[in-house]
Amino acid sequence: MFSWFRRRRTSPPASHRLRSRDEQNPAAKVDLAELAPGIIPYLGLVSYLQLEVYEATSRAVASAPDLAAKEILSNAAGLALDKHQEFAAEIRRRHREPAVVMEPYTHTIDRYVDRVEPANWNEQLLLVYLVGGLFDEFFAQLASGLTDGYGPKAADILRGESGRAGIATLLERAIRDNPKTGDRLALWGRRLVGDSLLVARSSLVLSDNTASDEKKIEPVFTELISTHIKRMDALGLTA
Amino acid sequence: MFSWFRRRRTSPPASHRLRSRDEQNPAAKVDLAELAPGIIPYLGLVSYLQLEVYEATSRAVASAPDLAAKEILSNAAGLALDKHQEFAAEIRRRHREPAVVMEPYTHTIDRYVDRVEPANWNEQLLLVYLVGGLFDEFFAQLASGLTDGYGPKAADILRGESGRAGIATLLERAIRDNPKTGDRLALWGRRLVGDSLLVARSSLVLSDNTASDEKKIEPVFTELISTHIKRMDALGLTA
Repeated sequence: MFSWFRRRRTSPPASHRLRSRDEQNPAAKVDLAELAPGIIPYLGLVSYLQLEVYEATSRAVASAPDLAAKEILSNAAGLALDKHQEFAAEIRRRHREPAVVMEPYTHTIDRYVDRVEPANWNEQLLLVYLVGGLFDEFFAQLASGLTDGYGPKAADILRGESGRAGIATLLERAIRDNPKTGDRLALWGRRLVGDSLLVARSSLVLSDNTASDEKKIEPVFTELISTHIKRMDALGLTA
Repeated sequence: MFSWFRRRRTSPPASHRLRSRDEQNPAAKVDLAELAPGIIPYLGLVSYLQLEVYEATSRAVASAPDLAAKEILSNAAGLALDKHQEFAAEIRRRHREPAVVMEPYTHTIDRYVDRVEPANWNEQLLLVYLVGGLFDEFFAQLASGLTDGYGPKAADILRGESGRAGIATLLERAIRDNPKTGDRLALWGRRLVGDSLLVARSSLVLSDNTASDEKKIEPVFTELISTHIKRMDALGLTA
């Protein structure tokens, strides 16, 4: 499960290290475009993922130790729910039922959610923070590959306000107050990113040409991992 | 706990039975106005209650048996969260912290929430449906008694879209499919209304003149119970 991720980290492609961020993004977009699913499967998948982010964040609201934390988390939960509802409304505009269009993705995502069961509140916070960020970013990039005109709108929704900056402050405080918490969360963060990347990858429409697919996927996932590492670093966690 | 409620049901005041709905509402407003708390306690209380309705509805999302039900419930959860956030924003406009202003009400409401722990998903649905409706209505009425100019706005927010009609359809289906479910839910509904009315009543600022207070409270609570009975009837449940 982790091998693919580790390979990318220990040996990033030379081209990636040399190119600036501005040069590298268009290339990533073009590559991923060819692997993007159709608009209806895309909407079903992102809609269900946002519903799950809302649910995971609401679980963190329920177990929050104080009202200030509840305020931060319920705000983030509401923003994920807003995203879900925007995608569900788009599905309805296309005369489809959100429940039907989301259904094919529930099995894979529910299994993923069961696997990444947090042991405590801080782990739940890190899950929402890292996984929410990773999926928003990945599916915003994938949106540019949609042949449908809705792509830019989908990317805008996913890159919109998430409320996760507030969650980062809760995590920073917990890590500062107890160094052991930081050690455990660093391990948890590594576990989360591996599983999350597999879910992201499973949404791509791969061809029979594995080598060609890998070449297209590589820069996008390298970028995702790089952003993940920055998120971990910002919290003072070793990625 | 139930005696007060039963007294009202078995012997409604003659004046209430004779007056039309239009005549009776202004009278109820005037009476309750004198018992309304100040604007800051009011905002703290309604803000926290809506947060709890959002949490209770989100718990029902988490245990929903299918995606169509999740859609209905997450919509209702989002609308309760919107109400909470509007009240929290008003608290901030008054240069106060929502967490601080809500704090005094957490003890009573959390104890209430612990007491009305649903045994299953249908009970959770009925809780959200009945309790959300009862509190929205009661605090919208109480808003007209606020000396602050925000009263009408607060009433508008509370009477705004709740998403509960969808929850009623889920309950109707469950009751139709299994008559035993209806019997159990009827009992549960009676239990919920007793505890909820006590919470509503505890938010009033009572004077030393118990008889005078009772006279003011009576028509409002009679009306609340009458609406509760209508909600139960609409589901085919005996109130």
